[in-house]
Amino acid sequence: MSEAVTPRSQDYSAWYIEVIQRAQLVDYGPVKGTMVIRPYGYAIWEHIQAQLDRRFKATGHENAYFPMFIPYSFLQKEAEHVEGFSPELALVTHAGGKKLEEPLVVRPTSETIINHMYAQWVKSYRDLPILINQWANVVRWELRTRPFLRTTEFLWQEGHTAHATAAEAEEETLKMLGVYTDFAMNEAAIPVIPGRKSNIEKFAGAVRSYTIEAMMGDGKALQSGTSHNLGQNFARAFETRFQSEKGEVEYVWQTSWGVSTRMVGGVIMTHGDDKGLVLPPRLAPTQVIIVPIWNKDEDKPPVKEKVAQVEAILRDAGIRVKADLSEQETAGWKFNEWEMRGVPLRIEIGPKDVAKDAVVFARRDKPGKEGKQFGIPTAEVGVQARAWLDDIQAAMLQRAIEFRDANIVDVTSPEAFRETIAAGKWARAWWAGTDEQERALKEETGATIRCFPMEQPGGTGTCFLTGGEAKEVALFARAY
Amino acid sequence: MSEAVTPRSQDYSAWYIEVIQRAQLVDYGPVKGTMVIRPYGYAIWEHIQAQLDRRFKATGHENAYFPMFIPYSFLQKEAEHVEGFSPELALVTHAGGKKLEEPLVVRPTSETIINHMYAQWVKSYRDLPILINQWANVVRWELRTRPFLRTTEFLWQEGHTAHATAAEAEEETLKMLGVYTDFAMNEAAIPVIPGRKSNIEKFAGAVRSYTIEAMMGDGKALQSGTSHNLGQNFARAFETRFQSEKGEVEYVWQTSWGVSTRMVGGVIMTHGDDKGLVLPPRLAPTQVIIVPIWNKDEDKPPVKEKVAQVEAILRDAGIRVKADLSEQETAGWKFNEWEMRGVPLRIEIGPKDVAKDAVVFARRDKPGKEGKQFGIPTAEVGVQARAWLDDIQAAMLQRAIEFRDANIVDVTSPEAFRETIAAGKWARAWWAGTDEQERALKEETGATIRCFPMEQPGGTGTCFLTGGEAKEVALFARAY
Repeated sequence: MSEAVTPRSQDYSAWYIEVIQRAQLVDYGPVKGTMVIRPYGYAIWEHIQAQLDRRFKATGHENAYFPMFIPYSFLQKEAEHVEGFSPELALVTHAGGKKLEEPLVVRPTSETIINHMYAQWVKSYRDLPILINQWANVVRWELRTRPFLRTTEFLWQEGHTAHATAAEAEEETLKMLGVYTDFAMNEAAIPVIPGRKSNIEKFAGAVRSYTIEAMMGDGKALQSGTSHNLGQNFARAFETRFQSEKGEVEYVWQTSWGVSTRMVGGVIMTHGDDKGLVLPPRLAPTQVIIVPIWNKDEDKPPVKEKVAQVEAILRDAGIRVKADLSEQETAGWKFNEWEMRGVPLRIEIGPKDVAKDAVVFARRDKPGKEGKQFGIPTAEVGVQARAWLDDIQAAMLQRAIEFRDANIVDVTSPEAFRETIAAGKWARAWWAGTDEQERALKEETGATIRCFPMEQPGGTGTCFLTGGEAKEVALFARAY
Repeated sequence: MSEAVTPRSQDYSAWYIEVIQRAQLVDYGPVKGTMVIRPYGYAIWEHIQAQLDRRFKATGHENAYFPMFIPYSFLQKEAEHVEGFSPELALVTHAGGKKLEEPLVVRPTSETIINHMYAQWVKSYRDLPILINQWANVVRWELRTRPFLRTTEFLWQEGHTAHATAAEAEEETLKMLGVYTDFAMNEAAIPVIPGRKSNIEKFAGAVRSYTIEAMMGDGKALQSGTSHNLGQNFARAFETRFQSEKGEVEYVWQTSWGVSTRMVGGVIMTHGDDKGLVLPPRLAPTQVIIVPIWNKDEDKPPVKEKVAQVEAILRDAGIRVKADLSEQETAGWKFNEWEMRGVPLRIEIGPKDVAKDAVVFARRDKPGKEGKQFGIPTAEVGVQARAWLDDIQAAMLQRAIEFRDANIVDVTSPEAFRETIAAGKWARAWWAGTDEQERALKEETGATIRCFPMEQPGGTGTCFLTGGEAKEVALFARAY
């Protein structure tokens, strides 16, 4: 585990796979395309869950759980939906020793079964809005898979809301896009760009889809969360109706929104370096690792005592801390190991530090001397660690913003577009093309419209491709 | 929703189904035997999860996630295991538009797939113990289902550990039995009886199974959690081996243990009464409901102001509080509604209370005047509410203990046994019967050995059935 990984510049894919295995985040399951999320990887997901769940509840949502098995006929009720998902479905055909009368779909997403229930729960405008979220596993049978990014089974949350008016549904859709953006920026230190999906990239069954798009270390885009305005599409398919305040029977207006274990992949590929993972302190399972240093046996007791003291101080300060007291490995081996695992802050304690009643801090995000400070007094360890972790979190976000902005190019011609995409960067351009032209562009360059960013220059411009008048700027990139 | 439910004494099953629907804990899913866990029911589960998870982590366990789809051949590797589970399996035969080469089992439990992974992870004694837990959904295709108690899909946690010695595995099995017992007593106020399962009742693939058995309001037993010593059964089937400290290659020793959404059913049936749910404060989604009382419009502003003040005090005190300010319903209707939902403590605030700068407390577990106190000063509301909630929690446990102990009968003859079981009680008796005699007893009386309680009288006694010398006392009851 102390061996180096393939450098990112040499083979980004190999780097990714090696890092997630070396850091023991995941392993491959026995069924093709499945992954086992190991404790260290799952702990990152638990922090993602906690931070999202807190935000969902603060915005008035409640959790619930709907069955994973959906009658196949439910999916057929919404035409776009079944067309979008049917190639990826897993079907249960036998259960309890018998062939089932109707095959059951293992949920790829839950709009259909949830509408089936909402149709029974909603009678009057007084029953609205319904603001429900579900934490669950879902299955999408994909041909090309990659741990965290695309697996046949993955974990996610899916919010499903129903409202009395179109305006409320759009407001909810954008509110949750805002929650996702806030989470990504402030917890994951991923400077996502929120925006609207193009018509051909939207969710199967949605009226409008919004997304947060993140730039990975190789310049590719990762769709990291989506929020959909479903309009009345599913409500019509499932007869989800209510009596309005005026006494009229109307279809409800709905939204759905989700973030998945893919976010773990986003964290890895936004921040990781050639030494391995670099975890943002707010999501790191271990925020501080204490590594004792000793050469002689007589050094061990006083060093261990100091380690225990510092560990207790940090724990009392609410910091997630571990001490690596293993005697089988050298301090150097431990440095590499915990760097591979991306622990944000390392504290080194040797006999000289004990003598000075001080410790050494070394931050993961800045290698070598630049990130190291000697002689931090024991008495200040709690306050200093907190300050360093906050600074690391902020610096990681700042670095990712700079990387992102340095790799987005404003283009105004097809040539510049091709060059930008070929160079692995994102192209930002006025766009007035058709769905067909968008598809052709993807065919030719591999780039898709990641989104029409919420932040627009305003006014109109000239479409880089067609030369027509464009009302919006789009972001194009190759994506995971 | 303010209508009364069928009294428990009249039809316990009807009472249960009516209460869980009226209190909006669950609804039926579209596929037979599935349930939708609605927000109020799911919130109880979230508190169960939080309290268990805290205990798992405090005892050194980490969470992880293993794929839900298991190759069918895996189950066949452990003979007892496949025999026990095959009648209940759901099979995925098609995925991604194609027939699969081998059908996939939707996990009924995860010993097999986890052993497949552990076999790859464990090399040396230094890799042991592995202490992993998983929160997941599982599927068992049951013919007779009942919400929470037995559903085709349910939520649970399953712990899976691997150890270097048989003694360590047994120690772990008993430790987790202790964790479950502690949780049930101190969080759910359910006075479970921990014990060992009989040979014919043990988990398919286990060497020894332990259980916590709870007595429901109708006298039936509910197996509420189990902890299994798996010995080396799965290790042999999956070649899960390690090199011991002495350099020998040995099979690991394993345990597994689980608690499911069935626990929610246990809470309902242990504490509920003819007015509906009675929730233990430590698991109640809402611990205190504030109901304002007004007759005239001019009363509303001062009452609402006081409600807001009391709500803020309680929230600051860390109490889960809600105020029911709806103007469409009467105070009386609200009393019934929140009693149905089992909220442990109600605070009433009317104009007279405002004038006295005081409030009224009414506890859910004691009906009428006995549970009501007038004139509690606003300034004391936080401290008093905390004290009342603690007292309610303790009183609920105490009442359940008394009910349990009043319904366990020591029997020494087959006649007394039959009478006890026929009366809906539990029989405690010395037992030296065979598996066959145990099966015959079940056939005749409907009662099974729930467990051999951990607490034994010691010495030996005379088997109530065979008259032979018995080394242990067993608990018999009809069960859910």
